[in-house]
Amino acid sequence: MSENQSGEPDGPVTFINVFEIPSAQVEAFVAGWRERARLMSTAPGFRDAELHQAVSAETRFQLVNVAHWESRQAWEAATANPDFQDAIRTISADPQQQVRPNTGLYRTAARVD
Amino acid sequence: MSENQSGEPDGPVTFINVFEIPSAQVEAFVAGWRERARLMSTAPGFRDAELHQAVSAETRFQLVNVAHWESRQAWEAATANPDFQDAIRTISADPQQQVRPNTGLYRTAARVD
Repeated sequence: MSENQSGEPDGPVTFINVFEIPSAQVEAFVAGWRERARLMSTAPGFRDAELHQAVSAETRFQLVNVAHWESRQAWEAATANPDFQDAIRTISADPQQQVRPNTGLYRTAARVD
Repeated sequence: MSENQSGEPDGPVTFINVFEIPSAQVEAFVAGWRERARLMSTAPGFRDAELHQAVSAETRFQLVNVAHWESRQAWEAATANPDFQDAIRTISADPQQQVRPNTGLYRTAARVD
């Protein structure tokens, strides 16, 4: 595995967003997420994104997005896109949506098939 | 899609566990997780499990497990296994590990490839 200028390993990364959101707001949020995901999917290095919805309304985190990118650099370039930034600002400014995102970039620590 | 006796749809489910864990404890935890995942992987209906580790120590959730199962019934049967229950109790009883798991069963709300 090669390294980039910052000394970090290159290679695929997983972006995960764990949402804290009232279960009653999930449906409306999913529609907007789909639009933003379509926008992201046109960016170089995008692989796939899947929004997981909890089966039970009692689950602490009702929505979890798991997205795969070819590299950290590709993900950073895509999130810097002004259209995507506008879309994110629109959600943050909507008083009807009490959504708290918890984002992070991840690598695989262990895997069993 | 068929329904089971409780009226819920059958079909694949994703089990997600969002861990709150001090970053200094991650390495030791991953080793134990690998053992438990191997145990689960022998159960009927198991597809795969991947433990994601945050690239940054500042990320709120340092570890996220995403596992795929053929059905909710298969996942429930596997977690009821006494060997697995013993393994879970061992972590909970270890005063060296301050791990808070947040588990949930999920279905796909939206996906973009």
